[in-house]
Amino acid sequence: MRKVFQEELKKVHDDLVEIARLVSEALNRAVEAFSSADVELAQEVIAADARIDFLQTAIDEKAIEILALQGPVASDLRTIVGSLRMSASLERMGDLARHIAQLTRLRYPEKAAPGSLEKTFARMAELDKTIADELVGLLDDHDLERTTRIQAANAEIDELHAGVFRAIANPSWTSSPAAAVDAALVSRYFERFADHGVSVSRKVSYLVTGEWDGDNTSS
Amino acid sequence: MRKVFQEELKKVHDDLVEIARLVSEALNRAVEAFSSADVELAQEVIAADARIDFLQTAIDEKAIEILALQGPVASDLRTIVGSLRMSASLERMGDLARHIAQLTRLRYPEKAAPGSLEKTFARMAELDKTIADELVGLLDDHDLERTTRIQAANAEIDELHAGVFRAIANPSWTSSPAAAVDAALVSRYFERFADHGVSVSRKVSYLVTGEWDGDNTSS
Repeated sequence: MRKVFQEELKKVHDDLVEIARLVSEALNRAVEAFSSADVELAQEVIAADARIDFLQTAIDEKAIEILALQGPVASDLRTIVGSLRMSASLERMGDLARHIAQLTRLRYPEKAAPGSLEKTFARMAELDKTIADELVGLLDDHDLERTTRIQAANAEIDELHAGVFRAIANPSWTSSPAAAVDAALVSRYFERFADHGVSVSRKVSYLVTGEWDGDNTSS
Repeated sequence: MRKVFQEELKKVHDDLVEIARLVSEALNRAVEAFSSADVELAQEVIAADARIDFLQTAIDEKAIEILALQGPVASDLRTIVGSLRMSASLERMGDLARHIAQLTRLRYPEKAAPGSLEKTFARMAELDKTIADELVGLLDDHDLERTTRIQAANAEIDELHAGVFRAIANPSWTSSPAAAVDAALVSRYFERFADHGVSVSRKVSYLVTGEWDGDNTSS
């Protein structure tokens, strides 16, 4: 029985790594579609999100089955409940990649962001990619130094996000109101993606160390 | 033992109703602050959100304790796992009310929304209030007719939300780009609030009927 249980926990672990990998891939492709106004690639990202949603449901069902049949306690119980929460955050990260792709498709053949913010968004995308990569690694190897890098990337994104809003409010802003809205939304998608990444990394830390350092994620 | 268990389940139920009630109150006050540019009221909404966050943590800890000590199965297990998920959605609804209050504070002494959209936002706020009220009732009495009303309100909000984006993109839009961004964000907060409300109502339906009608909520 114990061996079956360990195998089931391992399966949940592997599925979480897999969902993180799919989220990382979705973000990479959404960013590529967004920066080059590639509507076909955007379409693929949108379609692929269903696979992430499916995997989240599978993880949740597996976790509930383990709770029902194995009655885990202590750290195993926290791992299972933690998995339910992490899968929800990862699924939302997938949604945010999809939102970037949807905005790309909506504005095609135009680019979805004003040229004046191109560099800012490229940097935000780079930082989100780092977060997504580190998250795949963290879920797999539990190396907590990764959480430090994730938090540093998130802090830089928060600053860039604030900068986008300052740029839009500045009298020198010359693009249209609709372009301002697009820029604000994309900036928010990047920022939310990073926030959820931090949230997942904190849950991993908690499971590894037993200590909770708080979570300021908000929706 | 069984009696203790039922009492603990009842406590989780009561806490969920209480958190929904606080969310409803937060939304009502945030809307009032937003529509009248009342910065003190906005400040109160922001401060009160900590109580919602606290209550969510308390529900989650209680649920994990029940899982650990009682090893619930079947419908009781689903109720507990469902509570974990519902508390997370309710907490995010509280965050969205707080976001509305924060935007109000940021723009004070100006109003945070352009006058041309005042009626639209008033209607969206009214619909969100309905959703919040019905949710408190639904969590308490499990009367599933409430889910129909929640979904109808959500559908109307989705239409109004799309209308806001059309208004901003229209050449006749005369407010500033920054005002366009504020309008888009507030509209999104109202829309996300409704979406999370639908998500919670679906979880209640599922617990009551055992049938899942899908969930299209995205972050």
